[in-house]
This record gives sequence, C-alpha cells and structure tokens, in this order.
Amino acid sequence: MFAHNKRLQYSVRVSECNPGLANLMLEQFGGPQGELAAAMRYFTQALAEDDAGRKDMLLDIATEELSHLEIIGTIVAMLNKGAKGKLAEAVEEEAELFRSLQGAGNDSHVTQVLYGGGPALTNSGGQLWTAGYIDSIGEPTADLRSNIAAEARAKIVYERLINVTADPGVKEALGFLMTREMSHQKSFEKALYSIEPNFPPGKLPGMPEFASVYVNTSQGEGDMRGSWNSDDNFDYLSDRERFLAMDGGSGLPEVTLAAEEQKALNRMAKRTTSDPKADPRTGVDLGSAKKTKRK
Amino acid sequence: MFAHNKRLQYSVRVSECNPGLANLMLEQFGGPQGELAAAMRYFTQALAEDDAGRKDMLLDIATEELSHLEIIGTIVAMLNKGAKGKLAEAVEEEAELFRSLQGAGNDSHVTQVLYGGGPALTNSGGQLWTAGYIDSIGEPTADLRSNIAAEARAKIVYERLINVTADPGVKEALGFLMTREMSHQKSFEKALYSIEPNFPPGKLPGMPEFASVYVNTSQGEGDMRGSWNSDDNFDYLSDRERFLAMDGGSGLPEVTLAAEEQKALNRMAKRTTSDPKADPRTGVDLGSAKKTKRK
Amino acid sequence: MFAHNKRLQYSVRVSECNPGLANLMLEQFGGPQGELAAAMRYFTQALAEDDAGRKDMLLDIATEELSHLEIIGTIVAMLNKGAKGKLAEAVEEEAELFRSLQGAGNDSHVTQVLYGGGPALTNSGGQLWTAGYIDSIGEPTADLRSNIAAEARAKIVYERLINVTADPGVKEALGFLMTREMSHQKSFEKALYSIEPNFPPGKLPGMPEFASVYVNTSQGEGDMRGSWNSDDNFDYLSDRERFLAMDGGSGLPEVTLAAEEQKALNRMAKRTTSDPKADPRTGVDLGSAKKTKRK
Amino acid sequence: MFAHNKRLQYSVRVSECNPGLANLMLEQFGGPQGELAAAMRYFTQALAEDDAGRKDMLLDIATEELSHLEIIGTIVAMLNKGAKGKLAEAVEEEAELFRSLQGAGNDSHVTQVLYGGGPALTNSGGQLWTAGYIDSIGEPTADLRSNIAAEARAKIVYERLINVTADPGVKEALGFLMTREMSHQKSFEKALYSIEPNFPPGKLPGMPEFASVYVNTSQGEGDMRGSWNSDDNFDYLSDRERFLAMDGGSGLPEVTLAAEEQKALNRMAKRTTSDPKADPRTGVDLGSAKKTKRK
Amino acid sequence: MFAHNKRLQYSVRVSECNPGLANLMLEQFGGPQGELAAAMRYFTQALAEDDAGRKDMLLDIATEELSHLEIIGTIVAMLNKGAKGKLAEAVEEEAELFRSLQGAGNDSHVTQVLYGGGPALTNSGGQLWTAGYIDSIGEPTADLRSNIAAEARAKIVYERLINVTADPGVKEALGFLMTREMSHQKSFEKALYSIEPNFPPGKLPGMPEFASVYVNTSQGEGDMRGSWNSDDNFDYLSDRERFLAMDGGSGLPEVTLAAEEQKALNRMAKRTTSDPKADPRTGVDLGSAKKTKRK
Amino acid sequence: MFAHNKRLQYSVRVSECNPGLANLMLEQFGGPQGELAAAMRYFTQALAEDDAGRKDMLLDIATEELSHLEIIGTIVAMLNKGAKGKLAEAVEEEAELFRSLQGAGNDSHVTQVLYGGGPALTNSGGQLWTAGYIDSIGEPTADLRSNIAAEARAKIVYERLINVTADPGVKEALGFLMTREMSHQKSFEKALYSIEPNFPPGKLPGMPEFASVYVNTSQGEGDMRGSWNSDDNFDYLSDRERFLAMDGGSGLPEVTLAAEEQKALNRMAKRTTSDPKADPRTGVDLGSAKKTKRK
Repeated sequence: MFAHNKRLQYSVRVSECNPGLANLMLEQFGGPQGELAAAMRYFTQALAEDDAGRKDMLLDIATEELSHLEIIGTIVAMLNKGAKGKLAEAVEEEAELFRSLQGAGNDSHVTQVLYGGGPALTNSGGQLWTAGYIDSIGEPTADLRSNIAAEARAKIVYERLINVTADPGVKEALGFLMTREMSHQKSFEKALYSIEPNFPPGKLPGMPEFASVYVNTSQGEGDMRGSWNSDDNFDYLSDRERFLAMDGGSGLPEVTLAAEEQKALNRMAKRTTSDPKADPRTGVDLGSAKKTKRK
Repeated sequence: MFAHNKRLQYSVRVSECNPGLANLMLEQFGGPQGELAAAMRYFTQALAEDDAGRKDMLLDIATEELSHLEIIGTIVAMLNKGAKGKLAEAVEEEAELFRSLQGAGNDSHVTQVLYGGGPALTNSGGQLWTAGYIDSIGEPTADLRSNIAAEARAKIVYERLINVTADPGVKEALGFLMTREMSHQKSFEKALYSIEPNFPPGKLPGMPEFASVYVNTSQGEGDMRGSWNSDDNFDYLSDRERFLAMDGGSGLPEVTLAAEEQKALNRMAKRTTSDPKADPRTGVDLGSAKKTKRK
Repeated sequence: MFAHNKRLQYSVRVSECNPGLANLMLEQFGGPQGELAAAMRYFTQALAEDDAGRKDMLLDIATEELSHLEIIGTIVAMLNKGAKGKLAEAVEEEAELFRSLQGAGNDSHVTQVLYGGGPALTNSGGQLWTAGYIDSIGEPTADLRSNIAAEARAKIVYERLINVTADPGVKEALGFLMTREMSHQKSFEKALYSIEPNFPPGKLPGMPEFASVYVNTSQGEGDMRGSWNSDDNFDYLSDRERFLAMDGGSGLPEVTLAAEEQKALNRMAKRTTSDPKADPRTGVDLGSAKKTKRK
Repeated sequence: MFAHNKRLQYSVRVSECNPGLANLMLEQFGGPQGELAAAMRYFTQALAEDDAGRKDMLLDIATEELSHLEIIGTIVAMLNKGAKGKLAEAVEEEAELFRSLQGAGNDSHVTQVLYGGGPALTNSGGQLWTAGYIDSIGEPTADLRSNIAAEARAKIVYERLINVTADPGVKEALGFLMTREMSHQKSFEKALYSIEPNFPPGKLPGMPEFASVYVNTSQGEGDMRGSWNSDDNFDYLSDRERFLAMDGGSGLPEVTLAAEEQKALNRMAKRTTSDPKADPRTGVDLGSAKKTKRK
Repeated sequence: MFAHNKRLQYSVRVSECNPGLANLMLEQFGGPQGELAAAMRYFTQALAEDDAGRKDMLLDIATEELSHLEIIGTIVAMLNKGAKGKLAEAVEEEAELFRSLQGAGNDSHVTQVLYGGGPALTNSGGQLWTAGYIDSIGEPTADLRSNIAAEARAKIVYERLINVTADPGVKEALGFLMTREMSHQKSFEKALYSIEPNFPPGKLPGMPEFASVYVNTSQGEGDMRGSWNSDDNFDYLSDRERFLAMDGGSGLPEVTLAAEEQKALNRMAKRTTSDPKADPRTGVDLGSAKKTKRK
Repeated sequence: MFAHNKRLQYSVRVSECNPGLANLMLEQFGGPQGELAAAMRYFTQALAEDDAGRKDMLLDIATEELSHLEIIGTIVAMLNKGAKGKLAEAVEEEAELFRSLQGAGNDSHVTQVLYGGGPALTNSGGQLWTAGYIDSIGEPTADLRSNIAAEARAKIVYERLINVTADPGVKEALGFLMTREMSHQKSFEKALYSIEPNFPPGKLPGMPEFASVYVNTSQGEGDMRGSWNSDDNFDYLSDRERFLAMDGGSGLPEVTLAAEEQKALNRMAKRTTSDPKADPRTGVDLGSAKKTKRK
C-alpha cells in the first residue's frame, strides 16, 4: 500500500520559464532510462519475488523512484508554467506567441506546451513511453543484472542533462537524482553478489563445447585480442567450418512433414516457382490482368 | 560489409509440422530478448564505438547474433511449413482446417499462419518488435552492463523454451543458442573489467552525502537487512525528514516567472479554480450547455 | 514523496494456480483501463495542477491507484506462481508441461509464463502498455471529464472480469477494486461541478452559427430523433449545401504561394501528371527499366 | 456505405507556404485528440451499438469527423505544398534549402517534408498514430462519457492551435472545427442524460462499505476539503488501518498450490535465495564464470 | 466531405455467435493489410495529390475502403453479439462462462469480448493498429507501387480467411471484399502505367556504375541465376573488392573535426579505452564501488 | 551464416561535425524506408521461401542491405562524434553547449546526442523503429510487389536527403545507396515477371461480377476518367443501388443467435436503451450518484 506526502524528496528551485529545457527533462520522466521505467522495473519484479530480502529491497527502491518521478515531473511543470499561461491566455499576438514558445527555435517545445505543459509520458523527442522499456523476466540473477545496467544508464543520462543545464536549481536537483542512481546501482550489485553461484543464470548448463568459444566473425585489419577473447579464457575460432564439424550436421534445415502437408506444399510450389527462362515482357501487365476481366 | 553463407551456423532438424511450437519460438526471433534485439544492440554500439578492441568484439558478436536470428527464424518457418501449405491449398473442409491450425488450441498460431507462416518480427504473444527494446546509450561501462544483462535474460528465455519443447532437433538447436549467450556474457564481463575504473559510469562524481544512503521507503513486517543495505556499506535511512534536512529546502517547488507570465497564470487560475461551495446541481448539465445555444 | 507499507490495501486469497485467469487479470494491470494508466493519468495531472484542491484530490487518488496496481499485480503473480515453478524446474516431461501451462488451451498464458510469470505491463492480449492511453491535457474541465470517463470504463472492465472469475478470493478483490472506481468517479464529478462555468471547456467561444447544428450525415431508414439532435436543442441539418452557404466559400482549398515555389510545383507536375491516353503496355516494364542499364 | 463529395465541409484559404505551421496542424490530424481518433472512436462504437438512436447519432458524428479529417489534412498539404516543390526540384543550393525548410528552425518540419509533405498520421511531435488512443468499450454510459471527454479535449487543442496561428484562413477553419466539437459534446451529453439510470455504469452494484469512501492517501500541509471529499458525500478516511479492518484480512497475499507446484517452487527458491552473509567478493567475477570454461 | 448511408455496400448474414471467428476477422479491420490501413493510405495520398485524375481515383477508392471497413467491422460485431450479451448479463456460472467464451479454446477471444465485443482496431493477435502500416511518401510512382502491393497483400489475407471460414454468409462477404481488392489493384496498375517514364521514381539519376550491378553476397551451394541477376540485365559481382575499387576509397570512415572537438574526444577515450592487460579481478566489484562510499 | 569485413561497402568521408544532418540521416537508418526495414523485409521472406532462386536473391539483397545499414549508421556516428565529445566532456559553459548542440536550432539533435550520438533505431523525427514497417506475408507475387514498392520509396527518400545535404562526402555515399535501391528494384521486377501468371496473387478467383467494377464514390466537379477507370477496362458505376441489386440483399446485417444469447441481449438492451423523452435534467448528476451512497 502506498502513501504520499506533499513535500518533495528533494527541494526544487527553477529560475525562469524555459520550455526548451522542460522538453529535455522529459527524457528522465517518460524516456527509456527515466524514473517511470525504473519504478515499474523494480515494482513488477517485487510483486513476483519470493525471496523476502530482495522483495523488500525492490519495494524500497521502486518507491523511491516514484518520488524521483515526482521531482523530475515537477521540474517539467515548473519550467513550462509561464509558457502554458501565455498560450492559454493568448497574451501576445499569434505570430509572436508562436515564436516565443519556440524559444531557441524548435517545435517539440510547442508540441509539449500544446499538450498542456504538464509532464507528458514521452521522452525528449516526443516518443510515447512503452512497456517495451521494461525487461524484467522473473529470474533474480538476470533481473539484478538488468537493474545494475539500468542504473548505470540512468546515471549517464543525468550526467548529460546536467552538462547542458544552466539553471542552478535544476542542475542541483539533477545532481541529487544522478547520485541516487549510483547508490541504487551499488545495492543491486551487492544483492547480485549475495547469490551464489550467479553464473550462469538459471539452471540448465550449456553445451560445454560451445560455452567458451569466441567466434571471430568480423574479420579484417581491425582484429583485436583482449581478455574478452584471449586464449586464456576462450577458444578463439575464425573458421566457420569448425562449427559445422562440431554439430556433425550439414548446416541445412531438415524438416519432416506428413504426406498430406507435403502434397499441399508441392502444389503450392508449382504455382509460384520462379522460372528464369520466362519471357520477362509477359509480366504483371494488362495482358494477365485482363484475364480476370468481367465478361 | 556483410557476407552470407547459405549453411546455417548450427544444423536444424524438425520432426513435424507444429505451428503452436513455431509460435513460441518467435519469442527469440522478434521478442525483447531475441536475436534481432541482440544483433541490433551490439551493432548500433559498434558503429559509434571508438575503442578498437571493443568495436571489434561488438562486431564479432553482432554478426554472430544475425546468424542466430537465421537459425531461430528457420526453425519457425520449418515448424509452420505444413500448416502454411494446408492453408494456402485449402486441402480440408474449412471448419476442419480452422481446428487443425489451432492445434492444441490457440489463435496466435492462426494469426501467425495467416501472416504466411514465415518468421514474423513479433514476440510469441504477437507484439510487434520495437526499437524500445534496444538500450544502447554510447557509454561503454553502461553499455557493457546492458549487454551482460541482455545475455543473461536471453539465456533464461532459451532455458524456458527448452523446458517446453519436446522435438529433439529443436531442443538441440535451442541448447546451442542458449550456450552461445553464456559465452557472450563472459566476453562482455571481461571487457567491462578491463576498463578501470568502471564505477561510477561516466565522469561526474555524485553528491557524497547521497551516494551511499539506503532509504527504507517500504516499511512493515517484511523489512530485511543484507549486504545491499547493511550499515557496513550504506547509511540506512528510515526517516524522510532527513532528506529535507540534507538539502536545506522546504521540499516544495519554487519557480520564478516574468511578470507577464505570472499575470497570465493568475487570470487562467481565476477562471478554473474549484469552488468547494459551488452548488453541485449547476454542473455540466443542460443549463450551462444551453448558454452557447445558437439564437 | 511516496512511502510504502508491505500490507496490501485489500487482502487477496487465491485458491489455486491458474495461469489462464492470471492472463485475463493483466487487463487491469497493463491494459488501457488498468491501474497503471489510472495512476499515471492522475499523477501527471496533479504535477501540473495549480489549484490546491484539485491537486490534493488528484494526488490522493493517484496514490490509491498505485495501491490497486499492487493488488492486481499480486493476484497475477499468485495465480502464476505454481506454473512458473514447474517451468523453471522442468518437473514434467516437456510435452506434458507445454500442455499443462496452456490449461484450458491458449498460448498467451505460455508467453506470460515465459516472461517469468510476474505481472507484465501488457493487457490480457499481450499488447505492451503505452502512454498513448493517457489523455491528460492540462485543462481542468477537460481532464476531469476524461477522469470521469476513465473510471466508468474501469468499472465496466472489472465487472466483466468478475463475471468470468470463479475463484472466490479473486472475485472479492475485484469487487473491491470495482467499487473504488465508482467512488473515484463520484469525486471527479463533484470536482467538475464545482467549477463554474464548465462548458465550453477553455476560454474561446465558438462560432455561434455552428455551435448548435446537428448534421445528419448518415442518412437512410434508421434516422432517429432524440434529445441529442432535437429541434429544441439543435438546428437539425440534412443538407450539406447549407454549410457551404454559411462559410461563404467554394469548399475548395485555396493556397497562395511564392512565385519560385509555384514554378517548382509546375515543373514537378509536368513530370508526373497521369496521362489517360498513355499506352498502358509501355508501363513499368523492362523497356523503361533498361534505360538506366549500365553500358 | 460512405460517399464523398469533392467540396470540403468548410472552405480553407492558406496565405503562404509554412511547413512549421503545417507540422503543428498534424496534432489534429494524427494526434490523440485529432480527427482520425474521433472518427474511429465513434465509428467503432456505432458498429457494435444496438440502440437505434445512439447508432444513428454515432454514425452521423463519425461521418462528420471524417470530413473534418479532410479539412485539417488539406490544411497540412496546402501549407507544405511549396516546400515539397522546392525539395523535389532542388531549386536552391543544398545548405540554403536545408535552412529554408527549417523555417524558424526545427527539424520536425524537415522530417515531415521528407515524408512528402502530405498529411502524415502522426502528432505534431512525429509520434505515429496508434489505436491506443481509442477507448471504446461497448457500454453506452461509459462510452458516452468517453466521447464527452474526447470532445472537450479536442476543443482545447483547437483553442491552443488558434492561439498560435497567424494565418487568417487557417485560423478561421480551426475556429469552425473547434465549434463543431462543442456541438458534438452537447449531443453526447444529451444522449447520456437520456439513459436512466446512468450511474454506476454497468450492472453490478459495488460493495456498499467502499462505494463512498474517500481515502486521504496524500497527506501534508496541502490537504484540502471540497465537494469531492466532503463529509456530506463521502466517508473521509485518513487511517489506512481502517481498510484492513474492513476486509477482515491480514493484507498479505495467500495462495494455495498443489503439492507438486509447491515442491518445484521450494527447489527453485533454494537455488536463488539471497544470502546476506555471503562474501560479496565472490560475485559475478571470473572465478564463477570460469566454472563453465571448456576443458 | 463525406456522407453515409445506413445500408452496407454488401449484405452480411451471420449464422451464429462465434467469437473465435470474430477474432480472426479483426485481421482485416485493424490489421496491417486491413481496411483502415487501406482507406488511410489512399486518403492521405489523395489530400496531397495535385494531379486531378489520380486525386479523384484515390478519393474514390479510399471512400470505398471505408465502406469495406464498415462491412468487416459489422461482421465482427455480429459474430460477438451473443458472447457480449452473455458476458454482460452473466447468464451462466462463471467457470462455464469463461470456457464458453473461449470456444475452441483461446483467450484472444476473451480479451476481445472483455473490450466489449465491438470491432477493435487491432489485428487478430491483439496488436494495436499503428500508422506505421501506412507508407505514403507523396511521390506518385512510388505510392502507386505501394498501393499495388498493398492490394495484392490484402487479396491474399482475404483468401486465407476464406479458407478457414465455414459460415457461408461470412464467406460470401469475404469473397466480395477480396474481389474488390483485385479490382483496385488493376486500377492502380493502370494509373502507374499512364505515367511515363515511371522508372526510376523521382528525378535524380543513379550513379551508372552501380545501377545494374547484382552483388552475390550470399554464397554457397544454393547460388542461382535467373532474369533477376542474369548477365543480360546485370553485372553479376561476387567479389567485394570490386566495390572498393569502384569508389576509389579505403572503405574506412574518414571524419574531419574541429580541434576542440578532437581534444574532447581524446580526453574521453583516455578514460574508457579497454585495456587487454588489465587485471580482470579488479573489475566492477566492491573495491571500485567503495571509492565513492560516503565518508 | 553471416560474416563481416571491417571495410565498408562504400567509403564515407565527413567534412565536419553536424548533429543536425546526422539527425536527418536517421531517416534511412531507423525510419520506415530505411535499411533495417529493407534488410528485415527480405531476410524474413528468405527464411520462409521454398523456391531456390528467389531464396538466393532475397538473401543476396538482404545481406547487402545490412551493409548499407552499416554505411548510413557510420555516417550518423561520424556526424555526431564531435558533439558527443563536447557533451561528455562538458567543454563549454552549459548554456553555450546547449545552444551549440542545437546547431541551426532544434532539439531532436539534442535528444539524439543525449542518447549517446550513436545511430539510434529511430526515424529523423525520433519515432522508434517498429516491425509494423515490415509487410511480408509469405506469398511471392505479393511480397515481390511489396519489395518493388519499398525500393521505390527508399530511392525517393535518398533523393530528398541528397537535395538537402551540402557535405560532399555524405552526398556521394547517399548517391551510392540511392543507386543500389534502383538496381534492387529492377531485380525484384524481373523476379515478379518470371512468375506466370502473377495476377491475381494467390489462388482463389474473384467473384466475376465485382472484379472489374470501378465505383465512383467521390462525386463532384473533379470527376475524371482515365485508363484506371475507363469503360475499356472497367464497369464504371456511380449508383450505389447497383451493388445492392447485385448481392440480392437488403444491405442490412442479419445475425442468427441462440435463444439464450438473444434473451441476454434483450435484457441488456432494456437497461440502456436511450429514451428521447427522458427528462435531461435527471442525468449524471448527484441525484443518481447518491443512490449508491453508503448508508
């Protein structure tokens, strides 16, 4: 059960109306690395988690991300407030209003203000939030790795937003939010390490002959070696014939069908098989089309 | 530049037409943890990567994932082949054909066969593939973590598919694909560890007073402690007042607007402010609607 | 700022593992009339709302919807729990497991279980949640009407789910959730009526000559009259010429272009204008294609 | 059955090529409150409606919305016409053309013109139209409320577009379209009132003990009282313990599983349970990864 | 301007309630080859078309597709009618109702009925209609080819639906709709041929040295020759070196940057370059994480 | 099985950092007519194709499109490189950096750079790539027509991009890519013509009485005649009564229901039928809402 307190988790001060900056902030409201994605990622995992420790952690962090969603959304609304007022009141001549909303000159701002200037669940480019951003699959070592990665990405996006924000109050709040992602990343790392073993995820072992093969599929002057493909750790394989030898097969698909199915396929094939010798001038032209002409 | 060889990276044998199983296999063709998502994740990272070692690795693995996409797509097409033939040829009475396509009884199979029985870029539930599945952001320590997590998730989905597949040839090919994800995961882990330091990702340090705080936002009987929120590693904080004290603010949004903007807002507010004492019977009924009635 | 208590807002009891029913419940977790859509609808409105009364109400209800999201998501996870265990443990022969997961026979269940059996942000048909479901636009009389409608729709979907649910614990929890939507609908109605006037929404008056015209565009035997198009309330108009007379125009688009733009259009038109007298046999065939053939 | 007349329902005059304004107009062509959404909303309802009066009304209004879609789409095409000609003809030096298409400086215009300058089914931010905008559910009192709300939102978006449009011909056509939304809203309100009773929607009554409870979940200094949560109309409840007392439960999920399912879960849990005392240094590092190293 | 007549363009008779079949029919209501996609494809082209002949044809066919949308949507509503009634009235015991709605056994039917049983703008697998299905680009020879292809695809989907439909009235209506697609395809072909020349589309000629080269990128035993890659029509090229020789370049990207940009990149690279010799045990573990630990 | 060579299929030279141009180039990376869509279109067809000749051709062209995806993605990364460096390094004062990233002034560039500056799978307007762009249906004469159309559209988009690009190296590479689309279009046309007959697609003949009827549904001054609706090729039909006469029906839907279903519908109708004479003042107001008020 959730409760809400009307104070923000971190105080936000905005110096002036700035719809262009508001638009960028949407990246962390309704964008893929944003706070709704974070909250929903952990919340959906928490609901299906049986381990009491991880469930508690996931609920703690999911709830805090909702508070962060409130912070970033509040920033958006504050930066847009004056623009919305001017638009709703039509306080200026139309062409002037059009230009003033564009600020430094773009129309995502205008779209955003047309929607009412509140925080929209889109990224800074106007793309609607989609649950495709959520990658929870209900296996803890996989999900924790997803969470670690998600926090790392969110940290970077906040860093980039800070680098283009001149408003000191917004900058400070972004710094707070960025720092919290770092702390969450650490919690998820600790939780992953507390599961033993954590590799490979799941239960089925792999086929040993393919579990440490590195395939050099991209060849040319830039071929490099490092710990990720060293002989120490991997069988480095540049020859694709090796794979086929390993599986003992032809590399061609083989399928067994019932007789009736095979016959249907044969009939179908006969109708459509491409004929290299066919006269190309007799193609999809009126001649053939006319055959179905109504008498 | 890519080249293609007509043999598969791993031989595939299918015992009989099975559109129900074909449908499930789509999960790794056009699903979020599937091979197209994997290939595109690494490929987009590779194109923007400047480090020669990582670029080579990303291209190697992206290319191999395309070969895996070919394997899983070939399985789908083979499992559907007979069904497609029967549908195109209408070899049975309609109601019979309808039932036979449903197999064990579902209609995603039918939808899939209606589309022609080839591998569609959807997951097993029919959801169209979306680039929202790709989370590359162009910072190597974040992207490598995303890749590690993605391989872990793919391993699990293959494991689950193996657990419900009875066809031995399909099962074996799935085992191969699952194993390769494990190997890729290891490569990405090695590549991450070869970057020093790799935490925090990016360049900006956090605000030290918030970097190791764990907030116990979900309270109640299930509260648990572990390495992820231990006093050893974190300041464990259950009292939200502490945050507000830390930022020295009121927790309320403060925004500065130009005079003109403020006036527009005031006028707007006056028109819409909710009035608790308003007679509720005078609401959105015909009385008010009639005011705009044409004379 | 949000806080969470580990107890649910309403107790949930589930009688047995039932992935088919779990799948249906997703309709109110990640579907268009579901609890995430409700919570986000009110939350985004609250962040941009200046009126203190409405802001408070929106936050109260948004927070409660999050608690409902937790209830419905918990139901999904509970109904899937056994299925997930069987899948992860492969406790049965594969074909048997495949069938048992399908239950009454469908594969959305299997897809859902493949995802880990936790509550996914999809509707019951597997469609990913999208922010396109949220229709907040930042004008209170419009948004309150949207909220009233949303609660009415949610009430109906709960009613339908109750009608197909035989598990008494699930049925009871659904009844609770359905009832709360009714209560929220009433709050939003009261809040709308407390704004005076609330019609038309916004500030601009309409063009009086079109504000109460009802156009009978669909003609035929089924034409009906009622309060929605009565002469009492509307000008009932069956003759489309009347519109053109009212606007005094030709009904044709008129556009003024700069000379240079007009010239570019003329040149473009010359190249592509369809020629009814052209010999149809000289179309997109090899003759024309050959013109670009490399020498 | 539909028919079309080549004259528009309202005459449109455009003063000059203006791709920036064209882009904004897309909001009501392919945006969530736009005319396609309106037409499809009423059309899908009409097809499933059994009541002859409502069916007739829905078809009348759906058909008129298609005529409005034609008006707004025509405006887009007219505003882009010159830009398209210049692009197709490359009448200027490239860099000059690039800048001129951007007009006041943004690239959504360019994207739009790249698509050919015709009306695209996107909103003004480039988001593809999605059927997620349509919320018909086939229950008349709910659907009519949805329609009332949709018309109110559309009225507001037209108002905002009018406020930023300086071209008098476009402004006038927008005024016409805005006015029609007002008229449609009135028809839908009358139709809703003609159904008795219309609350609650559907047939199932709620649980009386929860039907008029207002839960004060967001607490703090901003708590407000009004008709929407007055003691007159509601039980105002600030104490979450009250809820749990009402349902007589523990607030914890209870699920009954078959023995076999429970055993599978137990085995699964054993493998993954987080161990707070585990040495965190033994985590996802090379040591564990090496265990699967090929011999 | 559109008008509507209450009679359908083709009479529809449905033998009995069949929600499973209704669900399949959605493929041509809200699916990618369905009637809304067709209508919107031609309608958006018509609005931007300057040639009077093509504009007239596009409007004629777009309008007819709307009438087809009405037919297929009416079929869906009719096939679902009884199911909706049973669901809304709860005329059976819940478990029985659940099973009866599933019919032959699937849950897309149930989802569809949950939505109210009216025609939803989804395909038969529940995927929401998206404007991504519309590929109009505002160049007539390209758009006409797109239209020809779209009609061919629609014809095939109707053929497949006919093959699984046993209800004679539905079968007949599908036959009518299928036939009309054939007629439309012919009109679009004639319209394409009436433009001279129609290849290549657009205005810019290609680079002659690459305009008729066929690249044999997929090599192996299945290599085939036919008119599509014959020496008669193409330069058949199996050697990728030839391309690089043709462009006279190295095949490597070359980019020129300002000094300041280059310096920023150098600094960035230094921080992240992967170091093959780095001790892999010093990776993303607590050691590095601790560095940001709060003092 | 795929292999990769580190050299590009065509050399790319970029003169200077230009994030605005990079953004436009995304149109052919992650846009509907872009190279990923092309590669996936042909690849999915190839996997399900039984005819050896077409399968080979589809694999050849699909593989080449992947090489084109690499070229266009490399251009995007190169044009963004300097911008990414400046953002990551924060080499300028924030407001200055904000402006410099905007270049000619828009924020899609900034969004793109925020994502890391690598090629994103979006179009130039920021819309995520969706598999809805892929229209393969597994019938060769339909799919080949789709491929011909797709190549024609891609050719046009490249032409438009060339017209707004001033950078000579980018312009040249775009010219190469455009030319290859022309060559592919020719191959697909030849392959279509080699199938005899290729019209109508599929196997079922149409209903002869409707196969060559042209319906003049859009009437008015602009009616035009040409080969696409000439008496030579079609029955030109302006009178909708003719259709109804042809099918011998009433044009009204007729549905047969079981008795129980009909009764449920009757009861449902009784509750909701609109009553034109109902007092409109008794509508959705507090009076009715109060009826459910808790005692």
